[in-house]
Amino acid sequence: MCEQHMKTIDEKFKALATDHAPGQEVRQKTSDLAAVMSGDILGGVPVDFSHGDVDAFPPTPGSSRAWNDGFSCGARQAYTEYRGSAPIREQLAARLGAFTESPVDATSELIITPGTQGALFLALGATVTTGTRVGVVEPDYFANRKLVEFFGGERVPSPLRYKGTAAQNGPDLDVIESAFGNGTTVFVFSTPNNPTGVVYSHATITAIASLAARYGVTLIVDQLYSRLLYSGESYTHLRACKLVPDDMVTIMGPSKTESLSGFRLGVAFGSSKLIDRMERLQAIVSLRAAGYNQAALSTWFAEPDGWIAQRLRAHEEIRDKLLGVFRSGGLQTTTPQAGSYLFPEFPPLTVDSASFVRLLRHQAGVTVTPGTEFGPGLHQSIRLNFSQDSTSAIAAAQRIVRMVDMYRA
Amino acid sequence: MCEQHMKTIDEKFKALATDHAPGQEVRQKTSDLAAVMSGDILGGVPVDFSHGDVDAFPPTPGSSRAWNDGFSCGARQAYTEYRGSAPIREQLAARLGAFTESPVDATSELIITPGTQGALFLALGATVTTGTRVGVVEPDYFANRKLVEFFGGERVPSPLRYKGTAAQNGPDLDVIESAFGNGTTVFVFSTPNNPTGVVYSHATITAIASLAARYGVTLIVDQLYSRLLYSGESYTHLRACKLVPDDMVTIMGPSKTESLSGFRLGVAFGSSKLIDRMERLQAIVSLRAAGYNQAALSTWFAEPDGWIAQRLRAHEEIRDKLLGVFRSGGLQTTTPQAGSYLFPEFPPLTVDSASFVRLLRHQAGVTVTPGTEFGPGLHQSIRLNFSQDSTSAIAAAQRIVRMVDMYRA
Repeated sequence: MCEQHMKTIDEKFKALATDHAPGQEVRQKTSDLAAVMSGDILGGVPVDFSHGDVDAFPPTPGSSRAWNDGFSCGARQAYTEYRGSAPIREQLAARLGAFTESPVDATSELIITPGTQGALFLALGATVTTGTRVGVVEPDYFANRKLVEFFGGERVPSPLRYKGTAAQNGPDLDVIESAFGNGTTVFVFSTPNNPTGVVYSHATITAIASLAARYGVTLIVDQLYSRLLYSGESYTHLRACKLVPDDMVTIMGPSKTESLSGFRLGVAFGSSKLIDRMERLQAIVSLRAAGYNQAALSTWFAEPDGWIAQRLRAHEEIRDKLLGVFRSGGLQTTTPQAGSYLFPEFPPLTVDSASFVRLLRHQAGVTVTPGTEFGPGLHQSIRLNFSQDSTSAIAAAQRIVRMVDMYRA
Repeated sequence: MCEQHMKTIDEKFKALATDHAPGQEVRQKTSDLAAVMSGDILGGVPVDFSHGDVDAFPPTPGSSRAWNDGFSCGARQAYTEYRGSAPIREQLAARLGAFTESPVDATSELIITPGTQGALFLALGATVTTGTRVGVVEPDYFANRKLVEFFGGERVPSPLRYKGTAAQNGPDLDVIESAFGNGTTVFVFSTPNNPTGVVYSHATITAIASLAARYGVTLIVDQLYSRLLYSGESYTHLRACKLVPDDMVTIMGPSKTESLSGFRLGVAFGSSKLIDRMERLQAIVSLRAAGYNQAALSTWFAEPDGWIAQRLRAHEEIRDKLLGVFRSGGLQTTTPQAGSYLFPEFPPLTVDSASFVRLLRHQAGVTVTPGTEFGPGLHQSIRLNFSQDSTSAIAAAQRIVRMVDMYRA
């Protein structure tokens, strides 16, 4: 046996703790909070910032009708290839190719997955095994780190600058190149970055693509939020770069901007070798994205005229109001260039940050995700998904500021 | 590094080949078949026996209405706990407890998964890691074997007798006990068995439960087809046995008898420790079974009066007719005691069995799954899901017999 590479199953699952994961807060106990709580329960409409509110921003018009049409199709729609319905892939490949400015082959380069989470799981499962060195960015989407560990890979972290101006922010290309030169064979990252909303610049994306090509590194690019781009910002699709690595997968889905999370739909598109592996894995994971649900993808990139623009404007308005609340409350908060996350940082408090996050929920009716989910050491930050009812969200942000004042050290 | 336990990612995915998996046949090339094909294309309505036909046996009445109700609920139904909606789990726990004759705690002992495949993946992911010795039955559901390999476990096979009478059929308890005594720590099996329809007897189930308890073996019991039990047969739920192991999970779902496969819904229920691990894994695999889809579980175990009985009668009738066709054609075929699979065995042929399966599809319009998917060495058998239109299925079975005669050695 080979102890250094063998985690017990208990160790493996300790690393997968979901106690603070978004949406799981309902399972937490609050009985021990009395000991650290000071002051009274704050009134106000509870807001769950751990994910977007699809009541405030409802699913794409026509999405439920599309599901019902799919259901009416019967067997043909219930049982698709594991990689998803062929006619739906045809339609999507054209739209995704146009959006990302580089063609996608529907037969060999695209898989429909159960959500973007499903796509990430399959992409890392298809590229990471015991001992694989995987570059991850800190902070970045929390599941990236957990996935690398679950598949037995070794995380090679590189930092993201996110507290400066848009021009100053971004990943550290020197650290990334040094990782690529030291046996890192897979690099996974999100742009727009989750949780900060930083969008990697054209120069950065071009550099990452070239470095990966030069060192033979596989790239997994999570572009989940790339449609929710704020005014004045620009976005570079890595797959459209002139020089790209042989093995590369781009991940997107209609769960966020389009509020179709309840359908669990995502896509991955890229090198046929990786898409093929992902389909093999999908076959033992859950066979396919739910057949009838796949039909709702017909609405994606085909929303009514002006609908996406209106959704963007509404989010930008909430973003700006919340930034105002946090900044006037003294909480450093980067302006997200895209997406619907804010990542404010609070000052030293009289309670530890884990307790503060639980107090926010218990005392102020505000559910947020602790910064430590996104990178070790980020105790002072919290992530908010501001795709919420505007009035409730602003009041909740004011309660967060009030709580920070109440517990300020 | 530790070579003996380290498969390359290429090796890992070679073991996951889906070229012959049910539903993937559409990706096969047929250009090379001309060299081995003799005779003409046979006429008739094509039948895809690789899975059930939900047009012939449509989804539970009310299931699409339940989905639409779920969609109308909005955010509450879109974002559930990873283990599934709490009120839906409450309802299901009571029904599953009654069905399996042993109570289920909705809070800690039940998880809703993306299909029964999803439940199996999570259950094996929660129990198998590098070097874990896992007992598997041959023949049994093909994914069991692939899952063990994917998670780095070591398969410990034991045979299933299935060509005798119901009283003679069943697993070999001596081989199983010897495996348990030799370091096997997980045992996974389906009853009713997929692909043969053999139901493990009361004595067998009691013995497996006792052996697992004595040796401290974790049991994963796939009962997907336990509702589709034919007249005169009886079924024993392992979890209701007096002596059971500490760690045990039962898996079911509404994809088969109830034809809800297009919703991708399944459940696993059992030891809270394992359900908890499965939820942690679900959090990085695909977050949750699609939220709106979960609402369709309200129809499960609550079908209209007589609906399940009628479905059973219809399947029993097709079963008996197909058994007649195959047996009078000289193909040994066990009478399934439950479920909708037949596993006929054909005599030596002039073409290899893989080509014969492809010829069946190309020349006779009949899609079946090769026996080798269910156990090594089962080249002479094919699996048919006979949940089909009766007339078309009988004609297709007659074409299979005709093809066997045409290619008989």
